[in-house]
Amino acid sequence: MKKYAVIVAGGSGQRMGTAMPKQFLLLQQKPLLWYSLNTFLQAFDDMEIILVLPAENIAEGEQIIKDLNAGNRVKITAGGTARFHSVQNGLAFVSAPSVVFVHDGVRCLASKELIHRCYEQALEKGSAIPAVAATDSIRIANGTDHTVADRNHVRIIQTPQTFLSAILLPAFNTTYQDSFTDEATVVEASGQQVFLIEGEYENIKITRPADLMIAEQILASRNL
Amino acid sequence: MKKYAVIVAGGSGQRMGTAMPKQFLLLQQKPLLWYSLNTFLQAFDDMEIILVLPAENIAEGEQIIKDLNAGNRVKITAGGTARFHSVQNGLAFVSAPSVVFVHDGVRCLASKELIHRCYEQALEKGSAIPAVAATDSIRIANGTDHTVADRNHVRIIQTPQTFLSAILLPAFNTTYQDSFTDEATVVEASGQQVFLIEGEYENIKITRPADLMIAEQILASRNL
Repeated sequence: MKKYAVIVAGGSGQRMGTAMPKQFLLLQQKPLLWYSLNTFLQAFDDMEIILVLPAENIAEGEQIIKDLNAGNRVKITAGGTARFHSVQNGLAFVSAPSVVFVHDGVRCLASKELIHRCYEQALEKGSAIPAVAATDSIRIANGTDHTVADRNHVRIIQTPQTFLSAILLPAFNTTYQDSFTDEATVVEASGQQVFLIEGEYENIKITRPADLMIAEQILASRNL
Repeated sequence: MKKYAVIVAGGSGQRMGTAMPKQFLLLQQKPLLWYSLNTFLQAFDDMEIILVLPAENIAEGEQIIKDLNAGNRVKITAGGTARFHSVQNGLAFVSAPSVVFVHDGVRCLASKELIHRCYEQALEKGSAIPAVAATDSIRIANGTDHTVADRNHVRIIQTPQTFLSAILLPAFNTTYQDSFTDEATVVEASGQQVFLIEGEYENIKITRPADLMIAEQILASRNL
């Protein structure tokens, strides 16, 4: 089936403390986004990418696409206020029927194998939301109160959140709610169940300076 | 007030895939445990440490204490079946009144500043449980069902879990329950409230090979 990856990189990276949005920071001489795009392009020959960027960073995105020689497979569109709006903008370029991967641009270490597994499960069940178990104890706070979550039941959610277009596109045909923190929550609000799939511990979201160091190490170990 | 750190390193490190328990793996030529002990020894001149080890690794622990020149400030005792039993064994060496830090031996990157802050809050409120916000979405799974946890309410729990002896010692005078996954859960079961405190993102638990690489990077950046 046709495959689209909506790669969301609309963030301004305030936690990173850098002037350049984090998706353009360099990892072994290449921007984070280069790796995210490259993995999706390599995962399937017929994958098309919609890259969602802050309006002021579209030139940087075009340079990455040029470096990847992928001009015919990647479209760029501008992001919106919240992640929901950015994804909505990206989905305007998706044709049905298809499988749609929605991916955090700063999760530049996701593997092709994960993308393949998400594809297979989305075909079979309609969705695939990568998740890993927690290694730390988790508590749910409510003001100054907090209760332990059973660690065996805690799942840390990643991307690519992957769906059949027949499920994702109607779900996004709605108005924004604060509870829409990822695509799974939007799809659930439309009345559809979503299905988890085993994620990858190395599929981290680059959020803080320490994460960039971690990513350098993981990349270096993969190149050995 | 008198200060004790019960440093729990009873694990066999099955997730690390190494023959040597992970608390003895090397980081810049020193065992992980060396760093954990060193930070607590440096945090307060009158800190005493009770190191809880697997019975078969007591010799390795004695070598670390010798390398730290800390024979008069560190006692070693053998661990038990679960973390609860290991901590219980360690608490046998604690005198009251005191402030007691219970720390994962493999969290070798906790800072002196965190230890100081935990101490102050434990004096004031009776407990200090370090916690950081989640950067990823979290779901709570129950069989194949799962529900989103509000990310603003999710707290990832760390150590040193710090308590007044008057609260911790009576709480551990009980029989083991499966729900005793850390010291906070034991204290709560005794009817006492526990109080969170801001933890540190770099205060990671070394659990998998990638964590060891991360810790190398963090240590290297601190030595700059």
